[in-house]
Amino acid sequence: MSLREEALHIHSVQKGKLETKSKIPVRNAKDLSLAYSPGVAEPCKAIYDDKSKVYEYTMKGNMVAVVSDGTAVLGLGNIGPEAALPVMEGKAVLFKSFAGVDAFPICIDTTDVEKIIETVKLLEPTFGGINLEDIAAPNCFEIEERLKKETNIPIFHDDQHGTAIVTVAGLLNALKLVGKEMSNIKVVANGAGAAGIAIIKLLYRYGVRDIILCDSKGAIFDGRPYGMNSIKAEVAKYTNHNRLEGSLADVIEGADVFIGVSVAGALTKEMVKLMADNPIIFAMANPDPEIMPDDAKEAGAKVIGTGRSDFPNQVNNVLAFPGIFRGALDVRATHINEQMKMAAAEAIASLIKEDELRPDYVIPAPFDPRVAPCVAAAVAKTAMETGVARIKVDPEEVAEKTRKLAIIGK
Amino acid sequence: MSLREEALHIHSVQKGKLETKSKIPVRNAKDLSLAYSPGVAEPCKAIYDDKSKVYEYTMKGNMVAVVSDGTAVLGLGNIGPEAALPVMEGKAVLFKSFAGVDAFPICIDTTDVEKIIETVKLLEPTFGGINLEDIAAPNCFEIEERLKKETNIPIFHDDQHGTAIVTVAGLLNALKLVGKEMSNIKVVANGAGAAGIAIIKLLYRYGVRDIILCDSKGAIFDGRPYGMNSIKAEVAKYTNHNRLEGSLADVIEGADVFIGVSVAGALTKEMVKLMADNPIIFAMANPDPEIMPDDAKEAGAKVIGTGRSDFPNQVNNVLAFPGIFRGALDVRATHINEQMKMAAAEAIASLIKEDELRPDYVIPAPFDPRVAPCVAAAVAKTAMETGVARIKVDPEEVAEKTRKLAIIGK
Repeated sequence: MSLREEALHIHSVQKGKLETKSKIPVRNAKDLSLAYSPGVAEPCKAIYDDKSKVYEYTMKGNMVAVVSDGTAVLGLGNIGPEAALPVMEGKAVLFKSFAGVDAFPICIDTTDVEKIIETVKLLEPTFGGINLEDIAAPNCFEIEERLKKETNIPIFHDDQHGTAIVTVAGLLNALKLVGKEMSNIKVVANGAGAAGIAIIKLLYRYGVRDIILCDSKGAIFDGRPYGMNSIKAEVAKYTNHNRLEGSLADVIEGADVFIGVSVAGALTKEMVKLMADNPIIFAMANPDPEIMPDDAKEAGAKVIGTGRSDFPNQVNNVLAFPGIFRGALDVRATHINEQMKMAAAEAIASLIKEDELRPDYVIPAPFDPRVAPCVAAAVAKTAMETGVARIKVDPEEVAEKTRKLAIIGK
Repeated sequence: MSLREEALHIHSVQKGKLETKSKIPVRNAKDLSLAYSPGVAEPCKAIYDDKSKVYEYTMKGNMVAVVSDGTAVLGLGNIGPEAALPVMEGKAVLFKSFAGVDAFPICIDTTDVEKIIETVKLLEPTFGGINLEDIAAPNCFEIEERLKKETNIPIFHDDQHGTAIVTVAGLLNALKLVGKEMSNIKVVANGAGAAGIAIIKLLYRYGVRDIILCDSKGAIFDGRPYGMNSIKAEVAKYTNHNRLEGSLADVIEGADVFIGVSVAGALTKEMVKLMADNPIIFAMANPDPEIMPDDAKEAGAKVIGTGRSDFPNQVNNVLAFPGIFRGALDVRATHINEQMKMAAAEAIASLIKEDELRPDYVIPAPFDPRVAPCVAAAVAKTAMETGVARIKVDPEEVAEKTRKLAIIGK
């Protein structure tokens, strides 16, 4: 069977990938009297008296909604909420398989920003966190920002921050290999969608000050009179200080790092040759990267990461989101803040010791079972330190719980 | 441990009652390539090309949302969406335990009718059906009616129709016992909330023409100048033809059937004595019925049903909703129509053969494993006959599947 046939088969044989399961199955009248009427009135009353008890007596504290409008699904684009459902079910399966987080797909039948925001806000009582998924830029930025302000549960747009966190984790290790510092490097990024913007923002927070972001119209600069939106305008305030205009080829010279979240073939060998010594390249276009790893290496690249599982250094979000939500949920975090994202990136990077670092091993493998526990503990700890945790827990217990609940590799 | 303590314990020990489960757990790279990227693109593309394929490749066709705004929860009233969550989780557990239907709680943080309607409509891509639960009258009527018109998946307000279906099932059998016909009986009902209204409507459809519905202000009649709402006004058009005014005691005389969905003690022994020969009484106020069964019997009642598990003839919605949704989902029904509700009532009633009928056995026991399969098959069959089924199935296969998936008694 081809991959295509096998994929259709496994999706149809059991009709999708997700089901609900009773923690307390009802088999007889006694079960019924406890799980439902009349016993269920007791937790209801307890929560009515103290709303925080919803975390004690219900599924909320371990339940994440995977929310999408289906406008930017994988490489397929705007395919709508029904066609997006297999991806959201898959995402829910990953949450469960990697970190024991219950997750449920919510495919919303609108692309209206206000309606999406309102719907998610109205669902807040049911969920301990919200993973926004495959919502096209620039809507995804406003939806996330507004929901972060208008709810009290973690809101995380994985296409932005998951990718950014794993990319930065890889970059932290790559820079060690080439002996460079965040504060001294020049980064050129291609692609101003959700992931590109988030990577730039996280790099800035790490002290990178020489950044040029390109989109399909070339380098973005403050006041560029074409192809702008509010988020690009914001990024332009703190990038491309010399207001360089031109194509990627025109601005790549001297770059220490290339970040590609754009299209196949966007980076040529000639461009790599224009970069600084020991260039670091994350070419994450899917399914085909901005430059093939062999070509990049031939042109002098030192470290190369892609989005693909068949090359080294795969930038796979699954290294981040399961552990991040595990950690955030376990402290009943109100938000996932920037410090928690940085803690996640550093946790991922830390799993490769300095003496293990190699150009083809700056990012742990997706199925490295150490990753989610390590990320979860770091995120929980940072949440407590930065005041967004509702309860205190021992980070080592969070790690241990994650190890216990995860099924990968088992 | 008291029931109260035990109920709190079982709700806290695993934090609620519901979790998600992967049908295709991801343990390694091969799993990932099929359940997620790149394999998942195949079902996405297939659904994009033909939206009906969402029933083939996703969880939608077996997934019901249990939707509540928390305004009329059990006997607790308006306790809000968080405090309602244990009930909605419990309901989801019942769906799964009795008929293998996946169900997921959606507690909505608003009581605004338009917002609830819009939210549910926006969730339509994800769910194969909607079970409305514990939404106060009269909002529940408008919400259900509008959603039935504005969506293409089954919408079912269980507090209305589940109760009505099981009550009518019991009444069908009780009438056989006393040798009366729907078309000749006088029914007096007390309580004009969700259940009371739905019971009246279903009885009317069964040919009952002499009906008086009372609320806390007494008999409802066309043009009553006090305590009316739009739904009571609608019911008044076809009930209480003589426009009798007065209390329950004033209108009960000669009634063959009393239906109570009101408050403890509403029906006295004196009132029962005013009823026709062999009175049939469904006294379903919770936790204490309108009249205690012993008192009703002393006063001459022939058949008595209540909402309680410690008396015979328990009117328990769990006899209806799992099988109804099982049947509706299995034919991918667009609606649950009146004929399907009647088929459900008759299926429930049919499980007690004429020679088994006794005054204390007109309704099957909640854990009778024959019920859900029988209801599911009847509902599926009727959906096909009445043109609301998207696909054809063998009703006996629906029954067999229900038997296989249910865990009650196992």
